[in-house]
Amino acid sequence: MTVNRQWIYARKPNGQIGTGNFDLRETPIPEPAQGEVLVRAAMLQFDAASRAWMQGQTYRSQLNPGDVMAGRGLGEVLESKAEGFAPGDLIMGDIGWQTHAALPARHIQKLNKNILPELHLSIFGITGLTAYFGLLDVGRPRPGETVLVSAAAGAVGVLVGQIAKLMGCRAVGTASDPDKCKWLVEEIGYDAAVDYRHGNLHADLKAACPRGVDVYFDNTGGEVLSAALSRMNLWGRVACCGAVANYDTATPAPGPAGVPGFLVTKRIRMEGFVVMDFLNRRREAEIQLAQWVEDGKLKPVVDIVDGFEKMPETLVGMFAGKNRGKLMVRL
Amino acid sequence: MTVNRQWIYARKPNGQIGTGNFDLRETPIPEPAQGEVLVRAAMLQFDAASRAWMQGQTYRSQLNPGDVMAGRGLGEVLESKAEGFAPGDLIMGDIGWQTHAALPARHIQKLNKNILPELHLSIFGITGLTAYFGLLDVGRPRPGETVLVSAAAGAVGVLVGQIAKLMGCRAVGTASDPDKCKWLVEEIGYDAAVDYRHGNLHADLKAACPRGVDVYFDNTGGEVLSAALSRMNLWGRVACCGAVANYDTATPAPGPAGVPGFLVTKRIRMEGFVVMDFLNRRREAEIQLAQWVEDGKLKPVVDIVDGFEKMPETLVGMFAGKNRGKLMVRL
Repeated sequence: MTVNRQWIYARKPNGQIGTGNFDLRETPIPEPAQGEVLVRAAMLQFDAASRAWMQGQTYRSQLNPGDVMAGRGLGEVLESKAEGFAPGDLIMGDIGWQTHAALPARHIQKLNKNILPELHLSIFGITGLTAYFGLLDVGRPRPGETVLVSAAAGAVGVLVGQIAKLMGCRAVGTASDPDKCKWLVEEIGYDAAVDYRHGNLHADLKAACPRGVDVYFDNTGGEVLSAALSRMNLWGRVACCGAVANYDTATPAPGPAGVPGFLVTKRIRMEGFVVMDFLNRRREAEIQLAQWVEDGKLKPVVDIVDGFEKMPETLVGMFAGKNRGKLMVRL
Repeated sequence: MTVNRQWIYARKPNGQIGTGNFDLRETPIPEPAQGEVLVRAAMLQFDAASRAWMQGQTYRSQLNPGDVMAGRGLGEVLESKAEGFAPGDLIMGDIGWQTHAALPARHIQKLNKNILPELHLSIFGITGLTAYFGLLDVGRPRPGETVLVSAAAGAVGVLVGQIAKLMGCRAVGTASDPDKCKWLVEEIGYDAAVDYRHGNLHADLKAACPRGVDVYFDNTGGEVLSAALSRMNLWGRVACCGAVANYDTATPAPGPAGVPGFLVTKRIRMEGFVVMDFLNRRREAEIQLAQWVEDGKLKPVVDIVDGFEKMPETLVGMFAGKNRGKLMVRL
């Protein structure tokens, strides 16, 4: 096996993303330089933000057509020219959509092989930290309050609802179809779930949150954000985690009509965050998350698809709302 | 003199407010009940929020056609049936747009007659407290940062810019014409001012804020808010004080396109406030504001119109951006 298979970000989406935006390419497996390791990808994850990387500059530089599609994943070290890494090590890093990568040692992280690999990419990775710090540090829920979560069946959302319950809150989620809503309540432990696409969003939200919304964990922006603002209580908090409703489009939609009116009259604090800013406190979160998992109080939810060839269709499916929990492809 | 002249909020505005929304009426001067005082109005102030009171419920209940138009002001006590008040006292309260009012003693406040009455309605009143707490507690500027203020020539804006300078910040304001912009820089002490109506808002804002915007004190919402969000620095703060761009209309405009996208990527905190929530700390602010005024470091700016008959046209003029500083009518 000397071939590196790569998915190239070939054409900029004109509106919604499709499988036609990617091309499969074969190149030689790279040689690691001094200070690098050669990695064989084992699992590659998907992020809602990847659509934004194609559109412009975000917290990372913009992707340009011709680039290997970006994405984080797990891999096994095949060859090391860097101190501290040896063949057989399990690492996490920005592998990209390819079967092999030569990565600088300073950009990768060695992982505990005793833990299921999929958990490194979900609850014990960025996803878990995002849910933990976004809800607890930005949203700051208090016992008895109502926490609303958009994209509640998504990677972060399935964790936020569970952590809200652990904090003594009422947890309400939004999702894009009735099956996911049922699953959120019956399997994940949400108190209620609202199908934002097929019902009456405002009325359903009101019924699901009879005492209003105190904390809104926003993964989407768009119409759910507007509706949430109209249901927020005085002194409500909005933790802005992402804007997936605006990612898969070339021109962002107008913002919610309640801004700034509702913010003023209801004294709402709305705050964006990027989980990277909390990494100096990651140990605190990891210990707590691991304890909850061990005690059976927090359920990791992963959605694993087999086959590197399925990378583009899996990403497209994520924007169509097909996944439940953290989505990844196993190679 | 036995006649009470009143301006009635007669007809709901269909879009922009006009003098035709008000009717002048004469009624007998009311008799104060037990626990009330009879007050003759001396000065009545104008609030941007008064337009919102006509449209729906805000932090106060909605005004309905037929009601005496609401508004705060200063008056002299003519007759007292309440302990602690005597004829000749100067008081502040919700007098409304009328020459006389019988007001419950618990809803009015006795004022220091040694201070110029117009200062009670501006820097030593709600206006001053709004600028002080909104900028310092919600915006939290640090020395060397850039503070942007919309409606900078308005009642609150003229104070926010001056306090920002006292904090060691660069102060930049927006206003609706070149004369006001010139005045903001030459008379009020703003470092720069941007005419948001007649120039290129984005380019002019960029030139006026070469190091970006750290704190945006938002009196307007609308297009200035959108433009400000695009110029905000990482960890920027938006203090939402009001949404005057949305008040004088029957249907609120869509919100700013940068919400929630910019909030996430730039970790912006956007927070609404209502000054009433800070009244338990008003003494702290009053002492500091009075000291700055006495030291000549903070200039009160008031815009006094003479004649009760001019109430409607003065309010309409305020929404057309005619006033500079706190607007009031002297009876």
